[in-house]
Amino acid sequence: MSEFSKEVIVVAGGLGKRMHAGIPKQFLVAAGKPLLMHTLQRFYDYSAEIKIILVLPDPFKAYWESLCRKFSFEVPCIFASGGETRYFSVKSGLKHTGDESLVAVHDGVRPLVSADTIQRVFKIAAAEGNAVPVVNVNQTMRKISGSDSHTVNRDEYRLVQTPQCFRADILKKAYRIEYEDRFTDDAIVVEASGVKICLVQGNPENIKITHPSELKIADALLKQ
Amino acid sequence: MSEFSKEVIVVAGGLGKRMHAGIPKQFLVAAGKPLLMHTLQRFYDYSAEIKIILVLPDPFKAYWESLCRKFSFEVPCIFASGGETRYFSVKSGLKHTGDESLVAVHDGVRPLVSADTIQRVFKIAAAEGNAVPVVNVNQTMRKISGSDSHTVNRDEYRLVQTPQCFRADILKKAYRIEYEDRFTDDAIVVEASGVKICLVQGNPENIKITHPSELKIADALLKQ
Repeated sequence: MSEFSKEVIVVAGGLGKRMHAGIPKQFLVAAGKPLLMHTLQRFYDYSAEIKIILVLPDPFKAYWESLCRKFSFEVPCIFASGGETRYFSVKSGLKHTGDESLVAVHDGVRPLVSADTIQRVFKIAAAEGNAVPVVNVNQTMRKISGSDSHTVNRDEYRLVQTPQCFRADILKKAYRIEYEDRFTDDAIVVEASGVKICLVQGNPENIKITHPSELKIADALLKQ
Repeated sequence: MSEFSKEVIVVAGGLGKRMHAGIPKQFLVAAGKPLLMHTLQRFYDYSAEIKIILVLPDPFKAYWESLCRKFSFEVPCIFASGGETRYFSVKSGLKHTGDESLVAVHDGVRPLVSADTIQRVFKIAAAEGNAVPVVNVNQTMRKISGSDSHTVNRDEYRLVQTPQCFRADILKKAYRIEYEDRFTDDAIVVEASGVKICLVQGNPENIKITHPSELKIADALLKQ
């Protein structure tokens, strides 16, 4: 792993329409500070050497800086401007990455990523070119077909998390593909460029905070 | 709905091998009392008229009774003996149900079911014969095929919860089918008897407490 420097693009481009909370969800407070600060701290704690690129919507940069002062938050970040969709936000962050690095892309609203998961995606991406963390589906699942539905074998499915990690050259090449609506995560974009995706174990608590009940869960788990 | 009496079979037959906690997970304490007490309380709070059939492994009946004394827990329950698998536990509980009732079957380790979800499954089952609560998949999902995997359209999938509710005659007829390993929930058994399953909205917090991190989540959400 020593030949690659490590970088992470933390995507916090969302304008928070789903949470109905007035402010975008990455700024909501859980366990004493905004979710996004917890997220950034996890990467900084993993390695103080990691280069953190924070993609924020331009209208919220000043607000974020005021939050950093208020919470005395000092994890060093490079800023990039959020785009209209996740794809364009990542592309914006990629302008700040090196060529010989491993680039992880992480959701700003996943503050519960473990050090083990971060370690694993960098390690496997160094060897395989990419690493995408997943967890098993631990509930019965049905597939809808028209007005009908049937139980599927949940062992054949995985729920996808972030950080998704790639060799910089692979990720940059993939992000030259023209945007499609189906590009909702990086694995899909990289796959579209002809690369086989390598799945690795994520951590079950590493949920995306999208709904109010998940904010309560994050608050409880972050307090431990 | 007035013509049907309401009954619920709460399945707490598990011997707790997965949780590694020494005691079965339905007895683990969250927010001040055992998970199973929270679960039973939700149904009693929904309606003090509901007939609650509690399926417990025989070796744990005395232990449960001691817990009820310790926590001054007084929700009235009829006991049934747990079987070797969930199928046989439900079948055991069915011996105590009426013929003209609506029977909900619920996991003892889902203490976060909402009154709305309970109300909804009884209401729809009264009209349609059955009602199975589900929630959307809110993460990217991949399907494994051999050593490869691909992203699937998560909008086509639903995660299945309990209480799954049925007209008693429909459920009893289904449980006359001989046991198969794939009978991991009641919808599958009823479906195997030729009945079309009716999906209704569950509530996102209504998770099954299977792993230690989920016990922490339950603790946080139950404390509110």
